[in-house]
Amino acid sequence: MLIDGRSHRSIWREPETGAVGIIDQTRLPHRFETRTLEDLESACEAIRTMRVRGAPLIGATAAYGLSLALAVDASDASLASAANRLVATRPTAVNLRWAVDRLAEAVRALAPADRASRALLEADRICDEDAAACESIGRHGLPLLEHLAKTRSDRTDPVTPDRPLHLLTHCNAGWLATVDWGTALAPIYKAHEAGIPVHVWVDETRPRNQGASLTAFELREMGIPHTVIVDNAGGHLMQHGRVDAVIVGSDRTTATGDVCNKIGTYLKALAAHDNGVPFYVALPTSTIDWSLDDGLATIPIEERDADEVRSLTGLNDSGEVARVELFSSESPAANPAFDVTPARFVTALVTERGVFEASRAGLSAIAPAAAE
Amino acid sequence: MLIDGRSHRSIWREPETGAVGIIDQTRLPHRFETRTLEDLESACEAIRTMRVRGAPLIGATAAYGLSLALAVDASDASLASAANRLVATRPTAVNLRWAVDRLAEAVRALAPADRASRALLEADRICDEDAAACESIGRHGLPLLEHLAKTRSDRTDPVTPDRPLHLLTHCNAGWLATVDWGTALAPIYKAHEAGIPVHVWVDETRPRNQGASLTAFELREMGIPHTVIVDNAGGHLMQHGRVDAVIVGSDRTTATGDVCNKIGTYLKALAAHDNGVPFYVALPTSTIDWSLDDGLATIPIEERDADEVRSLTGLNDSGEVARVELFSSESPAANPAFDVTPARFVTALVTERGVFEASRAGLSAIAPAAAE
Repeated sequence: MLIDGRSHRSIWREPETGAVGIIDQTRLPHRFETRTLEDLESACEAIRTMRVRGAPLIGATAAYGLSLALAVDASDASLASAANRLVATRPTAVNLRWAVDRLAEAVRALAPADRASRALLEADRICDEDAAACESIGRHGLPLLEHLAKTRSDRTDPVTPDRPLHLLTHCNAGWLATVDWGTALAPIYKAHEAGIPVHVWVDETRPRNQGASLTAFELREMGIPHTVIVDNAGGHLMQHGRVDAVIVGSDRTTATGDVCNKIGTYLKALAAHDNGVPFYVALPTSTIDWSLDDGLATIPIEERDADEVRSLTGLNDSGEVARVELFSSESPAANPAFDVTPARFVTALVTERGVFEASRAGLSAIAPAAAE
Repeated sequence: MLIDGRSHRSIWREPETGAVGIIDQTRLPHRFETRTLEDLESACEAIRTMRVRGAPLIGATAAYGLSLALAVDASDASLASAANRLVATRPTAVNLRWAVDRLAEAVRALAPADRASRALLEADRICDEDAAACESIGRHGLPLLEHLAKTRSDRTDPVTPDRPLHLLTHCNAGWLATVDWGTALAPIYKAHEAGIPVHVWVDETRPRNQGASLTAFELREMGIPHTVIVDNAGGHLMQHGRVDAVIVGSDRTTATGDVCNKIGTYLKALAAHDNGVPFYVALPTSTIDWSLDDGLATIPIEERDADEVRSLTGLNDSGEVARVELFSSESPAANPAFDVTPARFVTALVTERGVFEASRAGLSAIAPAAAE
């Protein structure tokens, strides 16, 4: 999508050198800086420190990380060790493991000498497929938004034909979280393209502020009207009829439709349910973990460093990126990074293969045979 | 309560000069600084900029503000004008108006020469009564916590006799929000005094972080175990049985038990309801607006400056209090300061006059005759 009017992906191969480039998302929105992934270690570091984040982009980065490891040492032992290191960087997103398994599968039968180039090719394919899947999510989600734009009633203002469709999103499930297009934002980009007036309430998404930092940045660069709010505000807006639909991404989805996404998603789902607001989850089917039924009981929730709660960065008065501490280190902090929204609160799952009810029955049409 | 082991109130008269002192709460937790309210203007400024905040403390500050205005000009016109200016500083809290009306009532029949001293006396009384009311809230809330400590089951860990009672609170409804003791925290202070092991999950409470800044500071100074979490995390903790009860304050409560409190309270009430966790609201009865039935439709919600969402202050690497901007001013922000939790999500109202069901029937025992 666009930055400064120029087309970008979140991860790419440099045309001349073939090197893998990423945007350092920890520097956004204050600085636009790119980095090169040199080796396995720099791929692991980029995932762990969230220079790249978002389940699909983590998967793509891991794929390149494995390729880079095989370029140095293509032995079975190196393959296994690199795969283990990558999978350990973030425990919650399922398509990190999916991408690593896919690459390992693709190269395992090959002679070591052929593995690195094949892995790189497979990583490139994962990226292209992800971009295509996300655009397809946008196409499948668009009719839902078109329908809302036609049928919603306005509970607070007189109905006016030019009132935009108000959508609320949590965290960043835009193109920066994927390779291109995004998941939750893809239908919004498609609606904007189609001329439907949209306005997005952007949850800032504490503690790492991916909404305020990344989603607002994306929407601004794409020219889409939006308003940043604190995570506390969405329920109030829904109570007053100021949200027509919520649309979020997913880091892992169970075979029964439970959705594990950024911490706080569950609270927005509860508010949507209490106020009759549709709650859509947009995801590539690679984030579905067909082995799981009960998301609350089984999905491991990453507990991140308490310092992410205690301090944050922004631009200081001199225009420099600076860190400030919000409260004393004598007060402990806890930092669970994800929560699980039970399927009963999910209106529909929007995937690259269509829109499905969030239930085993709803997902049965696309369930792999082995899991049925 | 205690700061550095010494007893404090949040607003006081200097023993020698009679001047009105406050703690500048915008500087906490990084700096402990006090200020003197010199005149009406400094009282209005202190309320508007939230050097003092919390419905009961706002009421007490307004009472002193009116006294200071009358010390300069005790005419009817001055009384009316000062009252209007004070009431306009913050639109949501009802006992700002309650305190101003009470003072006006006390002095109206007096000769102008007698008004200032009488107003000061009345303001002192409001403070003493508030401290007593809050301590009484603590006494009435204590049996609820004692009961929970005896009966709760632990859904995640083996039940152990020394597992603390886990309470979650939003914003700051502690002694800094009142004159002393606090509302939501008063029962917790009483439980701690009574030897019940308690642990408090402290919502940071964006955008102004009163939880991380004030509640964590209060609890630390009182030696009560606590953990700061982002506002997004409470639902997840409740899903996993790690919260035994939620207890919050109220800025305005309707005659039917709807509760207007800091933005985000409603989301915690929804999560408590979905997980069978008791949701208690602690309030002095002066925050009940007997004229209102439907909180959602009738309580005015203050919309504060978007800059409170866009930027915040903390300690920089040099240990100075510094402001940082979180996202570009090209992205708009909205900042509703309160939301309304419908009575159906409130387990009980804990007041200085006892514990009541959040309903017209529940409150009928204390409703003023005129409102019945």
